[in-house]
Amino acid sequence: MEATFENRIGMKELAGKVMSAKEAAALISDGDVVGMSGFTRAGDAKVVPAALVERAKNEKFKIDIYTGASLGPEVDHDLAIAGGIRKRGPFQADKGIRTLINNGEILFADMHLSHGAEQYRQNIFGTFKYAIIEATAITEDGYLIPTTSVGNNPILAEVAENIIIELNVAQPESLIGVHDIYVPGEQGNREPIPLTKTSDRLGVKGIKLNPSKVKAIVISENLDAPSTIVPPDEETQIMANHILDFLRSEIKAGRLTNTLAPIQSGIGSVANAVLDGFKESEFEHLEVYSEVLQDAVFNLIDAGKVDFASATSITLSAEKGKEVYGNLDKYADKLVLRPQEISNQPELIRRLGLISINTALEADIYGNVNSTHVSGSKMMNGIGGSGDFARNARLGIFITKSYAKGGSISSIVPMVTHVDHTEHDVDVLVTEQGVADLRGLAPKERVPLIINNCVHPDFKEQLWEYYNAAVEATGNAQTPHILSRAFEMYERLEKTGSMKK
Amino acid sequence: MEATFENRIGMKELAGKVMSAKEAAALISDGDVVGMSGFTRAGDAKVVPAALVERAKNEKFKIDIYTGASLGPEVDHDLAIAGGIRKRGPFQADKGIRTLINNGEILFADMHLSHGAEQYRQNIFGTFKYAIIEATAITEDGYLIPTTSVGNNPILAEVAENIIIELNVAQPESLIGVHDIYVPGEQGNREPIPLTKTSDRLGVKGIKLNPSKVKAIVISENLDAPSTIVPPDEETQIMANHILDFLRSEIKAGRLTNTLAPIQSGIGSVANAVLDGFKESEFEHLEVYSEVLQDAVFNLIDAGKVDFASATSITLSAEKGKEVYGNLDKYADKLVLRPQEISNQPELIRRLGLISINTALEADIYGNVNSTHVSGSKMMNGIGGSGDFARNARLGIFITKSYAKGGSISSIVPMVTHVDHTEHDVDVLVTEQGVADLRGLAPKERVPLIINNCVHPDFKEQLWEYYNAAVEATGNAQTPHILSRAFEMYERLEKTGSMKK
Ligand SMILES: CC(C)(COP(=O)(O)OP(=O)(O)OC[C@H]1O[C@@H](n2cnc3c(N)ncnc32)[C@H](O)[C@@H]1OP(=O)(O)O)[C@@H](O)C(=O)NCCC(=O)NCCS
Ligand SMILES: CC(C)(COP(=O)(O)OP(=O)(O)OC[C@H]1O[C@@H](n2cnc3c(N)ncnc32)[C@H](O)[C@@H]1OP(=O)(O)O)[C@@H](O)C(=O)NCCC(=O)NCCS
Repeated sequence: MEATFENRIGMKELAGKVMSAKEAAALISDGDVVGMSGFTRAGDAKVVPAALVERAKNEKFKIDIYTGASLGPEVDHDLAIAGGIRKRGPFQADKGIRTLINNGEILFADMHLSHGAEQYRQNIFGTFKYAIIEATAITEDGYLIPTTSVGNNPILAEVAENIIIELNVAQPESLIGVHDIYVPGEQGNREPIPLTKTSDRLGVKGIKLNPSKVKAIVISENLDAPSTIVPPDEETQIMANHILDFLRSEIKAGRLTNTLAPIQSGIGSVANAVLDGFKESEFEHLEVYSEVLQDAVFNLIDAGKVDFASATSITLSAEKGKEVYGNLDKYADKLVLRPQEISNQPELIRRLGLISINTALEADIYGNVNSTHVSGSKMMNGIGGSGDFARNARLGIFITKSYAKGGSISSIVPMVTHVDHTEHDVDVLVTEQGVADLRGLAPKERVPLIINNCVHPDFKEQLWEYYNAAVEATGNAQTPHILSRAFEMYERLEKTGSMKK
Repeated sequence: MEATFENRIGMKELAGKVMSAKEAAALISDGDVVGMSGFTRAGDAKVVPAALVERAKNEKFKIDIYTGASLGPEVDHDLAIAGGIRKRGPFQADKGIRTLINNGEILFADMHLSHGAEQYRQNIFGTFKYAIIEATAITEDGYLIPTTSVGNNPILAEVAENIIIELNVAQPESLIGVHDIYVPGEQGNREPIPLTKTSDRLGVKGIKLNPSKVKAIVISENLDAPSTIVPPDEETQIMANHILDFLRSEIKAGRLTNTLAPIQSGIGSVANAVLDGFKESEFEHLEVYSEVLQDAVFNLIDAGKVDFASATSITLSAEKGKEVYGNLDKYADKLVLRPQEISNQPELIRRLGLISINTALEADIYGNVNSTHVSGSKMMNGIGGSGDFARNARLGIFITKSYAKGGSISSIVPMVTHVDHTEHDVDVLVTEQGVADLRGLAPKERVPLIINNCVHPDFKEQLWEYYNAAVEATGNAQTPHILSRAFEMYERLEKTGSMKK
């Protein structure tokens, strides 16, 4: 192993910085604000965090952690449970940390994923004492090469006072060249981001390193926690088909051609099923401009359906991971990983005219969407990039099963209990029941589409009854609501265990 | 007059199209989708709409009207009341149409003002049969020169099948050269918008006209309805001072210098008071990048405080209007009017790093903002550009008096009844009570700042009581709410006429 890692430290002046995870973890102080690499469990530091867990178990040690997005179990499960996290942002997706966020033990700053870099740049969270960044290599010409995600690494390396590098020798060196690092300047002193095609390369192969900041290099061989891919069930398949049919109708209306427009798709099983659905379809020369690439995108590249895929992270199942990382050369000219400030940038999402597909927890009869809070109070994962994409996409699609928890909950309600995407930002709503195309409609025009096309039959009647009563009570106002009844379905759920009447 | 208007029709082939307002109005059919110029009562067509009012009074005549933003009384009051409008978008601000929107007689599609052009381009509202556009002149080289606003005119002229021009000879010819018309291409086939400074000029002096579309030219001498400027009262003055002090603290924190960053400010009396406050301040070389320029901006230019102002519309009091339009040459190198697709473009708002100041109807203890719906149901004006700016600005400030209706209503509530700006999008909240800087905070960190600094003393206790009960009831979840109590202040208001306990 020694030989291997030494080959990967091109800047020879840094060779002396190699130390154990425990030694590196000792550099961090209780109360520090720490930046970490990682985006949807890809490219996160692992062995230093594991050493931080030991500290949290044995001493008074709590830090603030800001990242690209969600991390693997070392931080978002183990360190959280060990009491080592005071505050976390901008995204998480682990039951461990979620429980502590929802019992008040951990503070969680839930942000649009394109906003993090601007906030870090402006020092909103305090001074970053350390950035802990997983890397494939440090090149001779002074670049830090990320691994399977870029996320917020470039800005964290820029703003943090000190850097700890986790050099992951289990990641293939062929990752060098996959990344395209471009960092916008200060606001007000910034050029247009010169991207006009998903495949454009704007920057350099890695993060220009200030070697004096590097306080430790820790060698790691731990692979990313694999994504636990959920195979499509009957209903995710139906939703996927609804979306494909809707896209066909857009072609008929002259708004798209069968190469569509670059696609962003959230993670999860429906997203995967939609993408899988393209494989046997008439669509071709597709492009992906997204946050995360899951298995399905690589299947589509293999099938010759996707010409190019741009993202900030690659999150694969264990099996697909072996295949892809074992043959990365095959994908070299079809793939780029960018900072999330670029993958999620409003400027680019709008310029490219994306088709964006994200999952909702619930929606209401007027088209507002809740992506984050169960019953208005309990955090699920966070808004992630869904707001960056939905607001700026050419076509912002939200999907959700029409029911949850075995049918006791309707995912369409009179009024959502938390709004992440306003009625102004939701173009199309899809459930296994059908599609509601809400574009250009006034709130009352949306109601029949949503109730008739998207609501589960068990709940249609009570939603109509609420709406009609609200029309009556408000004299047919712009958005009829009866505030004393708006959440009655949740009150029933709490009392009886079901929203059903 | 004859001589005057003939000078203004440089394309001689169009001279034969001059006709009366009544003749032009007769071209439009019941049921048509019609685009109209106009943005916050500036640059709107007036005499053709007045003729449409006569038709609506005397025959079955109802049309859909889409514009830049709000229009003057001819459309948003008279035509609405005459029953001539079936559906309206994307903004209005007149009691006449508002009443009909809220009794179900007129449909209203409330949109982000930067989204209109994309929707019109994609034909989401159906085919525009006519665009009725007020103009200063038609130049010899074929450009239609707008008057006091640009708004959505360029895209409406492009997508509409036919064009009616209202040639306003009362507007000074010196308006020629004030406009900068740049229209982004189709999404997916679009270049970066090449603006990096507020004063950059990207395009041409007017809208390239397809003469075969021009079906009528109607001569008008009617000036824009003047803005009814509300002089600052004690409380708007206090709010303005809070904002100025907050900007000073940002300078201390090293995030701004005393030239600040380009300023966007919504319309209304607080916005005007804030801008007026700059006059006697230490801030200098300011720039404005906004939607609407009100009196205060011209006062600041006169005072040498503002170097440049970019917007899509100029809405002035009668007095200031005379002064400005009588001396337009004085402002020629300090002023530009752009399409609202440019003034409100996320790409540019983010690149320039704007400071954005908009007014809220109400906010909640977690920082969600309602700009549009009174008690969740009744439309006030619409979201306008507030979402374009707040989401993308470097600093998104919302202002509201802490109370409404003489003190019976608290403008800070447990949960807003409609969300236009989510907790993810509101950086700073200001009332006459004080300032809450919410950046980077988790929901529960925001609560004490908002209640202690922004809420009126009459309502502090009940908001603390609600919050504490919600923490208890949810086991201290991410965003504690008790759904059965979330709207109890409104229920009390309805029953007793006051939110006070
Ligand atoms: C909304 C979101 C939580 C859905 O996740 P998913 O895994 O696709 O959907 P599931 O149907 O499995 O739902 C996840 C959980 O929420 C529960 N749930 C779903 N809808 C619910 C509802 N209306 N009420 C209560 N619970 C609900 C499910 O029962 C499930 O619970 P479990 O984990 O206890 O089984 C997820 O997509 C998300 O976090 N989105 C926000 C971020 C985002 O959009 N990212 C993409 C761009 S970055
Ligand atoms: C929010 C908005 C309505 C405030 O308008 P304003 O004229 O500055 O503020 P005012 O305090 O005069 O309030 C306007 C009305 O709302 C009422 N109001 C204000 N807060 C209220 C509340 N919390 N509950 C009920 N009514 C309220 C006022 O009493 C007043 O009513 P009136 O017309 O019957 O007197 C206005 O700024 C708006 O439409 N904003 C959205 C669009 C926008 O932000 N544009 C700027 C960028 S384009």
